Order: sequence, then C-alpha cells, then structure tokens
Amino acid sequence: MTATADSAQLAEFDRDAAVTPSGEGIYAADLPQGWHVGGGINGGFQLAVIANAIRAELPEHPDPLAISAYYLSPATPGPGAVDVTVKRQGRSASTVAAELRQGDDVRLTTLATYGDLGALPEQPPLLDAEPLRLPPVEDCVSNELAPADFRKIAPLIERFDMHFHPDQVGFFLGEPTGRGELSCWFRLKDGREPDPISLLFAVDAMPPVSGDLGLPGWAPTLELSAYVRRDPAPGWLRLVHRTRHVSGGQFEEDCEVWDSADNLVAQSRQLARLPR
Amino acid sequence: MTATADSAQLAEFDRDAAVTPSGEGIYAADLPQGWHVGGGINGGFQLAVIANAIRAELPEHPDPLAISAYYLSPATPGPGAVDVTVKRQGRSASTVAAELRQGDDVRLTTLATYGDLGALPEQPPLLDAEPLRLPPVEDCVSNELAPADFRKIAPLIERFDMHFHPDQVGFFLGEPTGRGELSCWFRLKDGREPDPISLLFAVDAMPPVSGDLGLPGWAPTLELSAYVRRDPAPGWLRLVHRTRHVSGGQFEEDCEVWDSADNLVAQSRQLARLPR
Repeated sequence: MTATADSAQLAEFDRDAAVTPSGEGIYAADLPQGWHVGGGINGGFQLAVIANAIRAELPEHPDPLAISAYYLSPATPGPGAVDVTVKRQGRSASTVAAELRQGDDVRLTTLATYGDLGALPEQPPLLDAEPLRLPPVEDCVSNELAPADFRKIAPLIERFDMHFHPDQVGFFLGEPTGRGELSCWFRLKDGREPDPISLLFAVDAMPPVSGDLGLPGWAPTLELSAYVRRDPAPGWLRLVHRTRHVSGGQFEEDCEVWDSADNLVAQSRQLARLPR
Repeated sequence: MTATADSAQLAEFDRDAAVTPSGEGIYAADLPQGWHVGGGINGGFQLAVIANAIRAELPEHPDPLAISAYYLSPATPGPGAVDVTVKRQGRSASTVAAELRQGDDVRLTTLATYGDLGALPEQPPLLDAEPLRLPPVEDCVSNELAPADFRKIAPLIERFDMHFHPDQVGFFLGEPTGRGELSCWFRLKDGREPDPISLLFAVDAMPPVSGDLGLPGWAPTLELSAYVRRDPAPGWLRLVHRTRHVSGGQFEEDCEVWDSADNLVAQSRQLARLPR
C-alpha cells in the first residue's frame, strides 16, 4: 500500500494487514517485513490479511465467525493478492473461499463463514468455562526479555506486548513443564484495541506449545480453524495454548482468547507437526 | 451406483458412501435414503462421501489428516457429484478443495490435507489425555430403545449400534445433566470395522451435545473440522462430545474418538447454532 495521510494515522496492524480492491473479488496486499518469524510471515497475520479482504467483499457480514486455513507455502515480505469467491450469501451469514497468493504460489487457502457479531442474540452464556486466570501483568514475563539474536530472526515479537505466565516460561531456559500449556497477557503495539480481525492474529501469536514439552522450535501448521465468538472489550487479552494429544509426530494446539471483561472472545484449533 | 456382484459384498457404509469417477476430478455419488435425520442427510456421512472421492484422486495419500467442512444447503437422497481440486501435492501430504453438489446446489464445501497414516512416525504418545472411560457396553443404553416415531424421521440411527453412558441419557427423558457432555460406544451395522473414512462419520453421529443443556433438537453446523490421528484398531469405538462455551446462540462441540486399543484416533470441533 502507498502511504497516505489516512494510512499514516492507522495503527501498525491495520496499515500492514490492509488490502485494496484490484478487480472482481481480488484484493492487493503488501506483506511487510515486520511480521515474519524464522522462514516466513506469521500464519495468523496472513489470516488477518485474508480476513480484511473477505470483510471488504461482504459489507453486510463483516465478522469472521469461523475460518479454516490450510498453509501451502511460506509467505515472504512483498506484494501479494487475495482472491475471494463467495460460495453462499445467506440472511445471517455468508460462506466464502479465499486464497492469499504471491505470484503463482498460493500461500494459504481458506474457507470462512462471516456474519455480524452484533446481531447474535444477547443472552448470558448458557455454559461457560472458567475464565483464564493469570498473575497480574507486572508479575508475568515480558517478551522484551527475549535474547537479541532471537529478536533478530523474529521481528514479529516487536509487534506486540506479550507477558507470559511465570510458571510456564521454563522452556525458554531449557526447563519445560511437560504439561503442554502456555498462557500470556497480550496486546498489539501502539495501543491498537482488539477486534475480530486482530483476534485471528492473536490465536497464532504465541510460540508453539510443543516448546513446553521439551521440543522448542518451529512447528509447521497443517491446518488452523479459528472461531470468533464475540466482539472483544478494549484492553488486554489473555491467551492460552493447550495440547492434550501428541502422537505420530503431530499435535493439536487449542487456543482460547479471553477479553478484559472475562468473556471468551475467540477459540482456535490447529494441527501441527512437531519440531524436528 | 448400480449394484454389482462386488458392491453386494460391501458393507452398507462402503456401498452407500461409494463414488465412481465421472470426469477429470469429478466423482459421481448416489446419496441413499438411509442416512438422513430430520430434514437432511447427516453431515458426517456427506463428509465420508467427499473423503472417498478425495482418496480416489490421491492414491499416494489415502488418509484424511485434517478436513474442514462448511455446510451450505441440506443434502437430499438422490444423485450427486463431488468435485476435487488439488491445491498442492507434496511429498508427505497433499491439500485439496472438494465440494459435494446436487444439481447446481453445493451441499458442502471442504478443504482437506491428506497423507498416509501408516507413514507417520511410530512413537509412543509424548503426551496423551486419559482414554475415555465408559461402563461396559451391556450397562449402557442402546439406541434400539429410541421411540418408534423418532426412528421414522431418523433412519440414520438404524445404521449403527450406539450405547450411551447411562448417566448421560437423562436428556432423552427431559432431564439433562447441564454439564454439556455426551458419550457412547459406537460401531457400524453389519460388523464393518472402523477406518479413517468411517471415523469422519463417527465424529458427527451422536445427537448434538446441546441436548444435555436442555435444548434438544437439531443444531445446524456452521463448520466442522475433523482430524484423523491414527488408524483405528478393530472393534468398538468410544465417542465423547463436549462443549464448554455456549454464548450468542452458538456453541462449539468437540468430539474425541477412542479405539479398542485405548488410542485417540480422531478429533473434531464444530461450531453450531443452538436449537431454537
């Protein structure tokens, strides 16, 4: 995107994940440097770019209710395009297929159902798990403590404040708990408040939970499905990643996102390969 | 499908969910009467039909590792077709898009990653939840006890033996537990042993878990993602459905499938609308 007066006022996340219409169901994107980690651009950030394109295509159904992402090749900084194909336009929800490509290479192919979170029935949750409990932010361990050589290959972590549960940071020091759980406080830099699009980034922002099992490193995602359950309240989010089944070189990673009003606002599940 | 000497020897599930090639990436299906429940053909059965078509298209990667299904319109008994588009053919896995349609109406659109379960590393699970515990089959409550008028609108339940946990059948009698959990023993009729394709049916075979919250009835699936984690051992399967978050008129339903050797063999999550 060319910088304009408008885009200069946007928060970093909105500016970087923005798309512009460039044809029938086609949106141009420019994937910036800052969101990569190791070999490619973060999967959750790619999902946010796709989610912005779908939102532009479906003005009556602006919110992702469910989106399933299959990652095909690593995305790199530079131009890209999102193709959106509407599969069904309904009264309360629409379903689309959308792909992020760079040149002829598809990075990420998705299916999604969009709706209007504001139109969901306002009723107290009929059943709800206990909200995620974390020690106060100031007692948690900030991502600013990450070693300089890691920050160099993971500029992604400069994009947000992430404060880990102090009982779960052992794996950064070679002392994993073995329980398969990782949780943190989370907010985007420059005070950008959470919304349904940024929640899609949040569910994939933490390091893989396999680290807590003594297997640090990159865990390639085979598939990730994310669900936005309600509009988040402003303020810090709390994230938790859990895995219960690690077998055949694979594991599932379940994420919950809780907002400052103690509501579950998003969930995701991914199937990933264990780091080698 | 025309009945042949071969198909007569097939188990009901294989005969009914079979597809035959009818063009480049196109497979013909004939959705039989027996798998519907209420207004449409069961979603898990539709998934099995699609899964058979994908398997036919990808001989080197016969097993669904992950498949995400978005249901667009109710499927009805009669002819249909599955269109399979290969998105990426890799060494250890391939990703495809596949749709089940009847005439011009798409019933179900999916993305899937297929691989070879037999080629996954053989290692003891690094972490595993406790296998699902159920009372012995003979102490559980058989689906044969379902009332005749229900069996008339739900011929689906004649396709399998399902024996529910006796502590969780209250909702059939108007006395739900309110915990949001439902579990059972499960096997297909005529002794057809479980395999990766039938697991996709199994994850959607039980009644919606919302019944256990006092909301019996049909809960339309917005999205269902299923994961096959390993080849199931022969014998009975154990299924459990759980929900933890019911809000905004929606709930997530997580399914686990355990085999007779106490291995987790499949998982699924769906986002569904509460019955009205």
